[in-house]
Amino acid sequence: MAHYRAPLNDLRFVREEVFAAEREWAAMPATAELNAELADAVMEEAGRLVTAELLPLNASGDAEGCQFDGARVTTPQGFRAAFAEFAEGGWCGLGGDPALGGQGLPKLLTLAFDEMLYASNSSFALYLALNNGAALLLDQYADEATRARYLPRLYAGEWLGTMCLTEPHCGTDLGLIKTRATPNDDGSYAITGSKIWITGGEHDLTDNIVHLVLAKLPDAPPGAKGISLFLVPKRRVDAEGQAGEANGVVCGGLEHKMGIKASATCVMHFEAARGELIGEPHQGLAAMFTMMNYERLSIGMQGLGLGEIAYQSAIDFARERLQSRAPGGAAAPDKPADPILVHPDVRRMALDVRAWNEGGRLFAAFVARELDRARYHPDAETRAHAEEMVALLTPVAKAFLTDRGFEATVEAQQLYGGSGYCVEWGAEQFVRDARIAMIYEGTNGIQAMDLVGRKLVRNEGAYVERLLARLRADLEDGGGADPRLRPFHAAAEAAAARLERATRQLLERARQDPAEAGAAAHDYLQLTGLSVYAWMWWKAARAAVRGLDQGGALGEADYRDKLIVGQHFLDRLLPRSEAHARQLEAGAAGLMALGEMRF
Amino acid sequence: MAHYRAPLNDLRFVREEVFAAEREWAAMPATAELNAELADAVMEEAGRLVTAELLPLNASGDAEGCQFDGARVTTPQGFRAAFAEFAEGGWCGLGGDPALGGQGLPKLLTLAFDEMLYASNSSFALYLALNNGAALLLDQYADEATRARYLPRLYAGEWLGTMCLTEPHCGTDLGLIKTRATPNDDGSYAITGSKIWITGGEHDLTDNIVHLVLAKLPDAPPGAKGISLFLVPKRRVDAEGQAGEANGVVCGGLEHKMGIKASATCVMHFEAARGELIGEPHQGLAAMFTMMNYERLSIGMQGLGLGEIAYQSAIDFARERLQSRAPGGAAAPDKPADPILVHPDVRRMALDVRAWNEGGRLFAAFVARELDRARYHPDAETRAHAEEMVALLTPVAKAFLTDRGFEATVEAQQLYGGSGYCVEWGAEQFVRDARIAMIYEGTNGIQAMDLVGRKLVRNEGAYVERLLARLRADLEDGGGADPRLRPFHAAAEAAAARLERATRQLLERARQDPAEAGAAAHDYLQLTGLSVYAWMWWKAARAAVRGLDQGGALGEADYRDKLIVGQHFLDRLLPRSEAHARQLEAGAAGLMALGEMRF
Repeated sequence: MAHYRAPLNDLRFVREEVFAAEREWAAMPATAELNAELADAVMEEAGRLVTAELLPLNASGDAEGCQFDGARVTTPQGFRAAFAEFAEGGWCGLGGDPALGGQGLPKLLTLAFDEMLYASNSSFALYLALNNGAALLLDQYADEATRARYLPRLYAGEWLGTMCLTEPHCGTDLGLIKTRATPNDDGSYAITGSKIWITGGEHDLTDNIVHLVLAKLPDAPPGAKGISLFLVPKRRVDAEGQAGEANGVVCGGLEHKMGIKASATCVMHFEAARGELIGEPHQGLAAMFTMMNYERLSIGMQGLGLGEIAYQSAIDFARERLQSRAPGGAAAPDKPADPILVHPDVRRMALDVRAWNEGGRLFAAFVARELDRARYHPDAETRAHAEEMVALLTPVAKAFLTDRGFEATVEAQQLYGGSGYCVEWGAEQFVRDARIAMIYEGTNGIQAMDLVGRKLVRNEGAYVERLLARLRADLEDGGGADPRLRPFHAAAEAAAARLERATRQLLERARQDPAEAGAAAHDYLQLTGLSVYAWMWWKAARAAVRGLDQGGALGEADYRDKLIVGQHFLDRLLPRSEAHARQLEAGAAGLMALGEMRF
Repeated sequence: MAHYRAPLNDLRFVREEVFAAEREWAAMPATAELNAELADAVMEEAGRLVTAELLPLNASGDAEGCQFDGARVTTPQGFRAAFAEFAEGGWCGLGGDPALGGQGLPKLLTLAFDEMLYASNSSFALYLALNNGAALLLDQYADEATRARYLPRLYAGEWLGTMCLTEPHCGTDLGLIKTRATPNDDGSYAITGSKIWITGGEHDLTDNIVHLVLAKLPDAPPGAKGISLFLVPKRRVDAEGQAGEANGVVCGGLEHKMGIKASATCVMHFEAARGELIGEPHQGLAAMFTMMNYERLSIGMQGLGLGEIAYQSAIDFARERLQSRAPGGAAAPDKPADPILVHPDVRRMALDVRAWNEGGRLFAAFVARELDRARYHPDAETRAHAEEMVALLTPVAKAFLTDRGFEATVEAQQLYGGSGYCVEWGAEQFVRDARIAMIYEGTNGIQAMDLVGRKLVRNEGAYVERLLARLRADLEDGGGADPRLRPFHAAAEAAAARLERATRQLLERARQDPAEAGAAAHDYLQLTGLSVYAWMWWKAARAAVRGLDQGGALGEADYRDKLIVGQHFLDRLLPRSEAHARQLEAGAAGLMALGEMRF
């Protein structure tokens, strides 16, 4: 009963009409061969593939789940065949290094592909997402020989990668890990320890699995500064890159979860498994953060993708469902009742979901473009600025996109009435699948702490200042006086001012009391997300007006709808930034007042 | 891993110190025999019973679900035995007419019992909740003979009642129902039709089930004015009240749902089943609303109860979980890390949940007391005023308590990190079970429409005016100048002014365009809920200060904590009323702008 078509038109509008991707790509040698037509073709094929191969497996995969027989993990029916399609088509190496078999596409495109994957089948998407992150990490930190042995396999989907961080007693606080790495005589290491919540730790999609494992060397300093990173394949890989004997990596079981049931979440035991050190000793956490940051943005797309399929499916339902009459009198007098979309409150819910989705798509594309600039842009200053933006906005993208994604799936479910609670309609699975995105890859609370700690207080607000300067420069860039754009202009300006005030206030307080940053973190992240969305909607509205006045790839009605949905964001969603600003003012004292044993 | 103890202390504080229950009861002949000690004893035994009998069946019932073999429905292991305990103890007739075997307890107590039931086992609670509603309806609308034949059975839990409204093509819009009632020669009716989503439509807890069924007589006018109400037992009941042969009531299947899996949600077929008319022909909807209103408040308690067990369980987890260090330096230097409750953002989540729960308990008690006054108070004017308050606040209680209950379970789940997503910890079940409460017994959108339509626009704001007058009179009633109470006083005053402004604005607009009421409904309901909570927190704070100054049943620390939690509500939750007020201003035009086929 789920309904999904890749939002190709909106993706193209965002990519080309809002963010001028073609011009952007032309300016960077690594992407100079790309153009709008090629991008369209890739996105279209991606959309076709996820709809044909993954969507039909989403509900059945949820019902069946992964199975564990004490040693092997079996993915649900159809997953192996679907994965083979993706691997053969080169979709596992979409953003990978072309010299080693990757497709070399920029993040702006791979992120849109991520959105489609998560929308059509979040469980399936995770196998690819972890692999992408692992490949990215190896690309940056592994030596040439290791890159050559592993990356072509990962890009080709012959093997899949994982990240192994969490242990039963530590998730957020990785300094506490107990997994040990003991040097072998041949320069390799014997890895011993147990990891939990390992996505794709064991499965039947590929015959080798490449684990990136955090462990401590014998001479490790205590805490987070003593963590090293190791590559530990399920089957040992020889110098020629051939997989051979088993490597002491054993799956101990699967978690039973609220959702993403077709994603194998494994307990993994490493029993003197042979691993190789990646990067420098004791520097593993920094390397892992490369992967985690990549995953964080990817997980943001889980929120967006699920919000999108939830919207499309709910609208599909709402068109058919007849209940009661429109407030002003029958809209469909020939039918026993009107379709529920005539009711203002039903429209409110639908527009909320849609505005979050379209705003999220704009924001994700913005961050993706900055990532591409940071990686590929010839100008060093542009790269440096883009890196700051990425650092600042990654926690926002992860947390705000997944908070809003979950909210969107819940609100879309509400649109169904009782059917939304029944499994057969699919809406409840979107809610369950979306819920994890607020938790894993660092809970959204941890993202907020990262934002206010590392990305704000540590640089005394310099990144935010530059973000605001850029926002304001963009507001000067044409159209603000147009009556159709004035509300968007005013809203973005007010949002910037509000964020600036909150930033100053927070910096001042954090200097006085270390608890203040944590106390403000959640509301500050929400405020940042809303403010950036206000900016994004200004961009979208400006592009829509340009499309109306000068023509564009979309139809007139599409541009008008864009303004309507954007206005809904201004009217009905952005006002909560005032509440967050107010809540932020409350400070830490109230939170710390209750004794620990009084909770 | 779930942790729950009935919040007896807080319930007693609310009952006696905030709402002076003993004095209240003494003023009404029907409850004059009740006193605080007796109430405490009942609550204590209720708490013991739910913890001993229901809590252990909650996770297992979720895992096992109800089974359907093509004819019979089997509840999960342990449910029959637990139900027998409750039936034998008289807990099925707690609020029932003493003349027919009920316990005659006021709503203020039965609602607290509901909270405990839903907390410990929401699926189980529903069998009792539907029965209570059915009994209430029969008590008010059935003739003497029918009351005598059925009520003692329902109060004793020998039989259980249901409500049969929804059909596949209509949930909200009951005017569309197709089930027919044809008069038999003996004065009974033959009921034919199918109903869906019937909670407890079939089960193995009792050997007869009493269905209250909406159907249309042959001469029924079209729409909602042509609906009659029938009592249709699963097994026919003779004049002496003995159950005999089967009555053409067949279960067609069970729904597969997101949660409340141990509650049998049935498709029911009535095949010329013999029924008796309850109340007047074509007046069935009004009678059914008696039951629905009762259920609505009860479902509000599902939100509150699940919020409470979610809180207690999450805190239980948080105390044991060690991750990272407190912002100002180690709080537990002898341990490898600090308990997560040292972190301000973790405390924020915990305090959010707690403040919603305690505010909800105050609000529920307030509505319950009004219900008792409406039913039992000797003074006609008091009864009339209380009836208005109940009418006004029932949709708010249903929707606001369940919205906040769901939010509370989600936020409590977040506190666990990854464990919150794993089934074994129980937190995810609370989320799934809480989700339905926003949907059934009239979606929360329907509640909002009821509030702005029937309870606001229809009386031109008279009910709200009287609510505000009462709130303001209460603010005059002592203590507002006390510095400890000043913030509560100011917040409640500001909330009243905000609600008043919004009310005026909405009334004005609704006169001009019928879409305006629907467009404002959601935000107006949220605003009303927050404003009433601000009032309730003023009451609680005043009682806490009284407890601190003059002593009370609780300890000093309890009263101080009450003020801390209340302050958290003012600082961190109430500010969203500003956003709702702003969103409400947006009006209907934006919502109606998008073409129906453009969604």
